[in-house]
Order: sequence, then C-alpha cells, then structure tokens
Amino acid sequence: MGKLIRVNMSRLVVSEEPVPKEYELLGGRALTSRLVFDEVPPTCHPLGPENKLVFAPGLLSGTLAPSSGRLSVGGKSPLTGGIKEANAGGVSSQLLANLGIKAIVVEGKPAEKGPYLLHLSPKGAELVEAKELAGLGTYEVTARLRMKYGEKVGVICIGPAGEMLMASAGVTNNDPDGNSSRYAGRGGLGAVMGSKGLKAIVIDSPSVFNAPVKEPERFRAAAKKFTEILLAHPVTGQGLPAYGTNVLMNIISEAGALPTRNFQRGSFEKAADISGEKLAETAVARGGKATHACHPGCVMRCSNVYPTKDGEICAPIEYETAWALGAHLENGDLDIVAKLNILCNDIGLDTIETGGTLGVAMEAGLIPFGDGAGAIRLVEEIRQGTPLGRILGQGADFTGRAFGVTKVATVKGQHMPAYDPRAAKGIGVTYATSTMGADHTAGYSIASNILGSGGKVDPLKPEGQVALSRNLQVATAAVDSTGLCLFVAFALLDNPAGLPTVVEMINAQYGTELTVDDVTKYGQEVLKIEREFNRRAGFTPAHDRLPAWMKTEPLPPHNTVFDVSDEELDQVFDFEKADTGEKAAGGT
Amino acid sequence: MGKLIRVNMSRLVVSEEPVPKEYELLGGRALTSRLVFDEVPPTCHPLGPENKLVFAPGLLSGTLAPSSGRLSVGGKSPLTGGIKEANAGGVSSQLLANLGIKAIVVEGKPAEKGPYLLHLSPKGAELVEAKELAGLGTYEVTARLRMKYGEKVGVICIGPAGEMLMASAGVTNNDPDGNSSRYAGRGGLGAVMGSKGLKAIVIDSPSVFNAPVKEPERFRAAAKKFTEILLAHPVTGQGLPAYGTNVLMNIISEAGALPTRNFQRGSFEKAADISGEKLAETAVARGGKATHACHPGCVMRCSNVYPTKDGEICAPIEYETAWALGAHLENGDLDIVAKLNILCNDIGLDTIETGGTLGVAMEAGLIPFGDGAGAIRLVEEIRQGTPLGRILGQGADFTGRAFGVTKVATVKGQHMPAYDPRAAKGIGVTYATSTMGADHTAGYSIASNILGSGGKVDPLKPEGQVALSRNLQVATAAVDSTGLCLFVAFALLDNPAGLPTVVEMINAQYGTELTVDDVTKYGQEVLKIEREFNRRAGFTPAHDRLPAWMKTEPLPPHNTVFDVSDEELDQVFDFEKADTGEKAAGGT
Repeated sequence: MGKLIRVNMSRLVVSEEPVPKEYELLGGRALTSRLVFDEVPPTCHPLGPENKLVFAPGLLSGTLAPSSGRLSVGGKSPLTGGIKEANAGGVSSQLLANLGIKAIVVEGKPAEKGPYLLHLSPKGAELVEAKELAGLGTYEVTARLRMKYGEKVGVICIGPAGEMLMASAGVTNNDPDGNSSRYAGRGGLGAVMGSKGLKAIVIDSPSVFNAPVKEPERFRAAAKKFTEILLAHPVTGQGLPAYGTNVLMNIISEAGALPTRNFQRGSFEKAADISGEKLAETAVARGGKATHACHPGCVMRCSNVYPTKDGEICAPIEYETAWALGAHLENGDLDIVAKLNILCNDIGLDTIETGGTLGVAMEAGLIPFGDGAGAIRLVEEIRQGTPLGRILGQGADFTGRAFGVTKVATVKGQHMPAYDPRAAKGIGVTYATSTMGADHTAGYSIASNILGSGGKVDPLKPEGQVALSRNLQVATAAVDSTGLCLFVAFALLDNPAGLPTVVEMINAQYGTELTVDDVTKYGQEVLKIEREFNRRAGFTPAHDRLPAWMKTEPLPPHNTVFDVSDEELDQVFDFEKADTGEKAAGGT
Repeated sequence: MGKLIRVNMSRLVVSEEPVPKEYELLGGRALTSRLVFDEVPPTCHPLGPENKLVFAPGLLSGTLAPSSGRLSVGGKSPLTGGIKEANAGGVSSQLLANLGIKAIVVEGKPAEKGPYLLHLSPKGAELVEAKELAGLGTYEVTARLRMKYGEKVGVICIGPAGEMLMASAGVTNNDPDGNSSRYAGRGGLGAVMGSKGLKAIVIDSPSVFNAPVKEPERFRAAAKKFTEILLAHPVTGQGLPAYGTNVLMNIISEAGALPTRNFQRGSFEKAADISGEKLAETAVARGGKATHACHPGCVMRCSNVYPTKDGEICAPIEYETAWALGAHLENGDLDIVAKLNILCNDIGLDTIETGGTLGVAMEAGLIPFGDGAGAIRLVEEIRQGTPLGRILGQGADFTGRAFGVTKVATVKGQHMPAYDPRAAKGIGVTYATSTMGADHTAGYSIASNILGSGGKVDPLKPEGQVALSRNLQVATAAVDSTGLCLFVAFALLDNPAGLPTVVEMINAQYGTELTVDDVTKYGQEVLKIEREFNRRAGFTPAHDRLPAWMKTEPLPPHNTVFDVSDEELDQVFDFEKADTGEKAAGGT
C-alpha cells in the first residue's frame, strides 16, 4: 500500500520502492522520524551527503478526513543538530497521498549545485535541472511552476535562504490560491533541501480526496462525525474560523505571557493593534479575507488574506508571526508585520526564528526596538547574502554570538515562539525537553495553562507542568503522524468522542483494529526514537534546559521566573511513571 | 602558603583569601581546572556572570627551576562550550608566584563595561577604571602600561577581539622585551576576560626567582640537574634553541602530515620558504634573533625575533602560526605570515583559530588560496568589527556555518593545529578526545609518531595510537600543572632521570614526598575533573570524534584516512585498563 520515492542527488537518480511492511502504519512525523532514525547517522553534518530530507503526508491525508492536509518534513536539523520534523498545511500532502506516495527520501549531494526540480505525477517521478530557478524567491518559483504545470499542482520549494544554507531557512508549499506561504518552517530544513541542490518539487495529481481507503462507508461516517465534533467546539468551530490563530494576541498579552521587546516583559500595550480582531477588520475592509482554508477540506479555516496598505497580499498572518515580527520587536504596526512576513515567505525564512533574530539584533543595538523600516532592511540583507545577512540568516543564537548578546531565548539552538515560559510554565517544559528544540507545537501546554482546554493548570506555578507537557507531547507526536492539523487537539482534549473517532477513521482506512490506548503507545514510540537519535547525536539532560537567565530574571507583570526544577524536567520522558498515574498527582 | 585573589566584577571589589588546604599542591592547569570545576556551573553561558576566569602560575613557577614560567588561564570556553585551560610563556607566571599569588579568580560581570585594570604589587591588589585603554591593541596597551608602571612589570591583556567577545580571542602577556605575544590563545578565553570588562592585569613584583621554597639547597641541586638534562637532549638542547618550534615545518611536510590548503594535502611545496631554517637565516640577516627566551630562566630559548622587510618586529613566529597563516592558506611568504601574526597579536586573536578560519574563508571563495593581501584585509575586518569581521572573529566553525562550508577541521568547535590526523593518527586521537577540543598540546603524539621521542608508533596505522595519546594526555595534564614548558616532555620521554628530577624539585619546594607514580595519578585526576565538567556541560562520546570527512577523504601523499575506530576512541580515558598494561598491547 503506497510507495516510497527515493531521490539520490549524488547520482541524480530517482527510484520507487514499495513501502516496507514495518512502515505501513507510519505516516507524517512517525514516518519521517523513523526514516531519519533508520537511515541518517546521528553525528553526520546536517548539510553533508549523509543527511536525508524526508517528506511524508499524514496517515489520513488525501482522504475526506477533515483538516487532514498536514505535510511532515524531516531530517537532521542544521539549527539544533538534532532530529527535526516540521509540518505544514497547504495542498501538497493531499496531492502526494493521492499519488500513492507515502514518503519522499532525498539523499546524497550533487557534484554540481544545480539546482534541480523533482516532478511527480501519475506517470512517475522525474528529476530535472532547473538552473533558471536559482536564487529566485518562493513566490516567483511557485508562480512560474504553476504557470508551467497548471494551477492545480502543489509546489514545494525553498527560497534563496535555503540555497545559501541558512539555518533559519524553511520549506514552503502553496495553498489552493497559489500563495507560497505554508511553511514547514522550523529547524532549517530549507538549508538541508538547499544542500541537496533541490529547489522545488512539483506534485501533479488528478485527485485530492481519493487516497485508498479499505472500508469507505465506515470511513465516511467517521469523517462526518469528526467534522461535527470540530464544528461543535468553540475554538475549532468558532474562534479559529473567525479570527485565525491571531485570536491569541490579546489573550496571551492579557495573561502576561506575551514576550515583548525580546522577552523583557509579558504584555504589549499595542497588542490590540496587531491582534486577530484588528487583522480581520482590516483585511475585510481592504477586500481581503478574515477566514480561509490552507488546504481543501479544512473546516477550521484559520488562515486569512491580508492586503497591506500598499496592496501587497500576505496570506496568512499567523499569531506566531504577528508576535515574532510584532510584539517581540515592539512593533505595533500590522502592515510592517505583513511586509516582513511577505519578505520571509519569499526569501524562504522561518518567521519565528527570523523574528527572534531581529529581536537579538535590536538587543545588540544594530537598530532600535520598534524600528520597522530597519527590520525590513535587515531582512533584505539576508536575501542579498551580505555578511550581515549571513549572520542573521543563521538564526538567533548565531546572531547573539556574533554580536555578544547573551540574552537569547533559545533551546537547543532554536528560538522560542510566542509564549514566555516564565508566565506559562507548561510551555517552558515543552520548550526545554522537546526533541525539536523550543517549539510550542510539540506540546501545546497553553491549552490548559491559559485557554482552559483539557483542564486547568495554573500557568504561574511549577506544579503539574511536567505531567501536562508530557501528555501533550505524546498526544502531539501521534496527531502529527495523522496529517490532522494540531488544532484538532482542542476538540480531542474536551470531547471524549474525539479521539475514538480519529482512531475509527484510521481503522476504516487501513483495516486495522487500533484502540485509543494504542494512540498513546504510538506517540510514545515516536518520541522514543527521536530521543534516541538525539542521544546518539550527543544530546544529554544538560540540553533539556531553558537559558539560565530565565531562572533569575523575573518577567513583568507577574514577576515570576521559570522554576520547574531540573529534576522534574528530567522526568518528562519517564513514560512508565506517567502510565502509573503521576498525572493525578500533578495538575488537575 | 600563597594566596588567592578574588576579583568580583559585579561589585568591583578585590579580596584576598588564603589558599584552601586542598588546593595547596595544585598549580597551573590542575588549579585552574579544579577552581572552574568547583565554582562554575557547567551549563552556564560562557560570557555570562556565572563563568569565571582563573589565572594560575605553575607549581614551580617563580623559582630557579629552568623553563618553568608557564601561566595557566582557565574558564568555560565560549568556543568549545567545555572546560578550558590555555597556557603561555612570558613573564607573568613568575611575577605572580613571586607575589605569593597561587591564583586570580575573576568572577561576575560589571553593570558598565569599563573596561577595568587590575594592579597587583606587594602592596596589594587594586581594581581601577581604564577607559583610556578601551579598544586598543595589545601592543599599545602593553607599551602604555610598561611606560606607566615600569619595564619590569608583567602585563596580561586582551585586544579588541576580546572586548568584542569573539570566540577566537586569546589572553596575552609580554616577554622580557615587552613584546605582547605570549598567548594563552585557545578557546576564546580573551572573550571571557572581555565579558568581565577586564582589559589588563599589571603585575609588579620586585623579584622573579624568589617564590618560597622549603628546602632551598635540595631544590637548587635538583634544578641544576634538570637544567643539565634539558641541555643534553637533542631537541631541548639543540633543535629548539637553533630554530625554535618552526624546526618542524620541513619535518612535518616531509612526513606528509602538514595540512596544506585547508587540509587538501599533507605536504607543502613551499614549506622550506616558511621553515625555521629560513626564519633563522632571515631574522639574523635583518638584525633579529634566531633564539630568544620568552621568560627569564628558560634554557630552551625557542622563541625568536623576526623583523619583517618593512621593519616591523614579530617576536616570535611559532611553528603553529607559520603553518596556520602559511601552509594552511597556501601562503609561502614568511613576511606575510609575520604581518598576519603581528595583526593577530595586536587584535588579540589566537593564530591557530584565525588561520583555520582564513582557510575556511578561502574554501568559501571569499578570497583565493594564497592571497596574502586578501588575508590581511580580512584580519583587519576583525579588528574593525564589521559584520564580516564578526563572523571571522568567531572562528572556523562559525565561519563555515555562515558561508555553507562543511569541510571544516574542528573538534568540539575548536580548529585543529598543524598536523593532519590522517597522516599522524596519534594526534587525531588527542584532537578527538581531549577535554580541550582539537589541541596538539593536550597529548603531543607527534613525538612518537614522527619525531622518534618516547618510542616509535607508526603514524599511518591506527594501532597503538589510543594508548600513546592516553599516556601523553595524562603526562601533559601533570606537566601543565608545574609551570614547566611542555617541551621538557622530550627530555622526560627519553631520559629516565627526567621525571624523578621534576618530582624532586616539587618535593624540595613543597616539603612533600611525592613519587613518580603520584605524577600519573595527578595527571589522571586533572583529566577526570575536566571530563566530568564537560559531561555535566552536555558532552558525550559523540563529541569525541573527528569531522566525518576525515574518515572518507584520503590525504595525499599517503592517501590515508583517519581509521581509529569509535570504540577505541571511547577507551582513551579508561585509565584502569591503561594501568593494567594495555600500553604493551598497543604501540611499542
């Protein structure tokens, strides 16, 4: 069932293989992490021929399962030095699944840079030279390839940042309108793609929802039920469709956990100016869209289309980006956020890492906080590959080192997203211990710390955060393997029928009889191999820590520090302890 | 016996403490590493207030023991992230010992940058502001301070590189002529000093050889005997005094182990042009000196005074520097080497790391190999702190990342010195496993691999290298604690009377009854705490490895790769195994 496409960039040869039996029930993150674990030497250079770049649609991608179009991209990260999976919406995951492709494995390194393009269609897979795309931004690349191959194709590509092997470079693909803005952004996988000389992948599939399903009727019923569950939940059915992810801006600022001016305080007086509410109002007034689906069949439609005052289109502005390029830089101008976002998308940069980096550059005094025009200039330097751009493109840690800034909010070399762990301590546990470096999506404790989903754990106290993060990290590893958007987790946390319905969809599609308990084991297994890869790559408990200054510098307005103890952090992956009921002893 | 000076840079207060009993028999590296182990949190930021910078003269420094003027500098390294000890000749070690100072511990971090100056004299220790020294090169700083405090003072200082917190920045001190060129260069300790806001230390002592000795007559006899032993050995008595360390250039090139053009081949056709022989001839012809002592009482006198054709003085040019700024860059012009060396000394840069970095910059195509004028321009960029200079000043790994070069010869982030481990495999074991990152001085296997000292182990074969490196690393850790120059090791390896005479000097000075066996335990103990610090900082066996490309890319002319197995590398610190006779089973 399904095939594996192997792209050898040393020999410039593409081959197809049947999917090995033991990979059959792996999808998305479970499959990328397993392939990386099985095939990549943990101590290899992330940009050398031994690293591999793996693309895998989720288990449910390409079916009628709602909101199941996430594409996982994996490899050894040039940013963290550990295993990496980053996933994105957009049209590619569904198209790959409809071509019967379980995974693409890109390996080796070409003698000549190329770049090259991989073309996938029902006729097969073909690798061609694409020198004409060298150095182009992702918007231009996507437009040209949709022009050439048709508007229905999916285009996965990198920008100049990836070609220049920058550790902030992401891998993007387009939404149904052709916006090249759905990023597997984190961890520098765009640089891995660049190191392989691969500029783009075109996916040409005649269908979107026809991935093989063993029991179609049973599947349809489960998918319908899951759609209803999503639409019935206040977050997935109302909040996200109305204001997108940026509905969080005011909430997190009010909670005092919005990192402002490079983590100097926890709320931003101009939060409302860059909030989802303001975004929706402005977008609609300018002829854009307050709600929008990043791939066919998404019922949460949390994306948006924001026209700037100059008439450029940014689609979408996400909360994390509005924070990284807004509050973090003390910038309260949504048009500046949009302009920086467009630049990052086009150059091929992760907005979280780039925003983090600009904050460090401001901390270093290169430009003042709040200087939007200066920030735009700096991002343009990245595109040009000037020496300063080469520094900034390598991320926040690198920039901190270059300019002697020690106050840098990174874990395992990756910059923190939009929640300060001193005022939302569960997310601090996730940042510290995730196999991915600082990553909110790896175990979104904000749900229970602030949003009231899945129970309530006081965000300002250390108690219960480890159990909370552990359970979420396990669940997330499983969800990331299905192709379902992580936002379904709100419904899974609060509606007891949620998880059984997901399991029912998987069973109907694959003819299996998995139980809800199997999902926990599945997630644990993913984390175990990721942890083991990292251990072999040289990671130890000493790396599962937040920067030391977060333990001593209090964050206004709550004036709390991060005080989950090292001993507790070291228990996050103690799954047996978790299984025997520590959860009850921890949070509520 | 002796005192410890504690300099708190947060409060700008200096205090004196008696030396704790358990530190009494520790000196040099044993003392800096022990203080770092006892007082520095292993996971702290190397440039944050929790790191400490420790200066310690050796056990025998400041006495009549010949060639005993090495000063150890220790801390957590901003380059490797691990523990670091770098030692240097020059006058400071003896002067500190004559003031009764066992160690200086610089801690904390000032609110205002300063910089500050620490003045030490028989009247006590004083910390004063020295804004007038900010940004100055080390030559100017040393000249001004010798003008102000007298020509007999020792000046320890950093250049602009250290002030800019660059990871290639070293800590220098002057020779008896006032040349500020005796560098504790490796591992970025200059940046640690810069982070503390400390620009210079002036050591004003009325005497040089009067450090307290418990049994003076016994000591004098042993010192005399040790002098005779050194003078009788062909390396320490003839080779080094005649041509200095650069006597190695032709030898290592002929052995095929001279890394040339960024480790592309093992011999350099212009080696003779930058050799010790050529250096001596040119120096003497221009009115310089072929032999010169870096501190009073050195009998090996391996230093030199090289006037460039433009009349600038470089004192000295060492082999490692002539390689890093010569063969490594395919530069066969000794005047270019000297000019680059002078710049590095003045800016405050480690010549090995800087040469390594220039090789990476050439590999990246910033300038061509062999472009001496271009290399000078790049080093000037470091002084100016331009964005490009900020990249280069952070070292070879950093520069490789910025420009996408994966062929970088580093271990634990520190660049390799002047021996290619593919053609001198014992030094590869030392590079891979040393607590210090790639460092030839940590276990100079070249002695037995190429120079025929201490037996003979075939440099091209993997057999016997682990035992060789282990024994040398243990012995070196002990020698580095005495204040004796590491070059005495040639005599210790070949003359059975050598080590007992060193032990006799220590016993006479401290009133102890140590045996030769105690020296091995002493060295092992130093390595154990350094390893333990690194383990707590997050190091694992995965970090005890050479770059992967050295295992697959053969080095001409021998066309060998580095093939000591990972399993063997992991046995280097298995001292019990070593004690039970693995040596016999290994090399000869």
